[in-house]
Amino acid sequence: MASLPEPLQALILAFERLPGIGPKTASRLAFYLLRQPEELSRSLAEALLAVKSATALCPVCFNITSAGMERCEVCADSRRDETLLCVVEEPLDVLVLERTGGFNGRYHVLHGVLSPIEGVGPEQLKIRPLIERVRQNPPREVILATNPSMEGDATALYLRQQLAPLGVRVTRLARGLPVGGDLEYADQNTLLRALAGRQDL
Amino acid sequence: MASLPEPLQALILAFERLPGIGPKTASRLAFYLLRQPEELSRSLAEALLAVKSATALCPVCFNITSAGMERCEVCADSRRDETLLCVVEEPLDVLVLERTGGFNGRYHVLHGVLSPIEGVGPEQLKIRPLIERVRQNPPREVILATNPSMEGDATALYLRQQLAPLGVRVTRLARGLPVGGDLEYADQNTLLRALAGRQDL
Repeated sequence: MASLPEPLQALILAFERLPGIGPKTASRLAFYLLRQPEELSRSLAEALLAVKSATALCPVCFNITSAGMERCEVCADSRRDETLLCVVEEPLDVLVLERTGGFNGRYHVLHGVLSPIEGVGPEQLKIRPLIERVRQNPPREVILATNPSMEGDATALYLRQQLAPLGVRVTRLARGLPVGGDLEYADQNTLLRALAGRQDL
Repeated sequence: MASLPEPLQALILAFERLPGIGPKTASRLAFYLLRQPEELSRSLAEALLAVKSATALCPVCFNITSAGMERCEVCADSRRDETLLCVVEEPLDVLVLERTGGFNGRYHVLHGVLSPIEGVGPEQLKIRPLIERVRQNPPREVILATNPSMEGDATALYLRQQLAPLGVRVTRLARGLPVGGDLEYADQNTLLRALAGRQDL
């Protein structure tokens, strides 16, 4: 069996290390880049090299921000409601919430969830800075927007316990049927939550 | 709405230019790389930068080979059957056929298929070098392994016409039910082909 030229093999292996990209997709991407003008590979390579050195974590909310900024865009924006604090797992979640346009408060990024199996305890997350932040400058409400998963729920419960002594209102995102969804295809747990959380019309 | 830091945005946009990667996957990949050690982004970036300059097309079969090689590994291997020539659309197809371990002849890569809609005529493909190669060194058999698609079939028919005057045997890969497939899920055309191509047991 003939093998691929080494540089091509190296590119395929590098792609394979990304999440959700298997050997077939990796080959397809590598061969695609070979067919395209060099500019395409070059722009991706340059973006890859820049991204780590040119970004940093906001010291207030731990969202990703440009390196050298004192705080991130949201924390620096005085028009954002400082009395609403939304706690999310990952920086990507901030992006998703921002895209909805429905939230005008501040964020706090945990950078993970509690997961004893994977050895992630409170100390591995940005939980201590969150408690400190709420203590020093108590918001009207802390919205726990961790994922509606087992780990997300456990993390939310833990945070509620930790925040309880501070006397701040703690809420959690609603569970129910996704908009545009179909009752027929909803799983049992979601349907139970939708029933329990039913609202007056 | 808060926007992402520019370097991160640039990386997401660069990923989005790859085939099969939409905005969501691109964000996921970019945020994943941010979380990982810098070595991961760096190795991908280096592979991207090297791949174009370190690879070239084999002057005989037009498969991809390391730059500076006189011919590719398959063409240089004297143990491969020179009397069997397999014509494929893309370099990736060579890889796929090699993985089967069931073909020990030589290849010829067309680098595309005839597609009048996209302005791809015989001159845009490596068809003239193929005819020349068959004329100068006639193989026992030319296997047309273009895809079983409309364009692949049209290209195969065109090649058969062009090869006919040279008196060489021209074959096409078999159509039929995929191994491990299910009659129930086979489309009508495949089933018709499988019927027509039935073989004695």
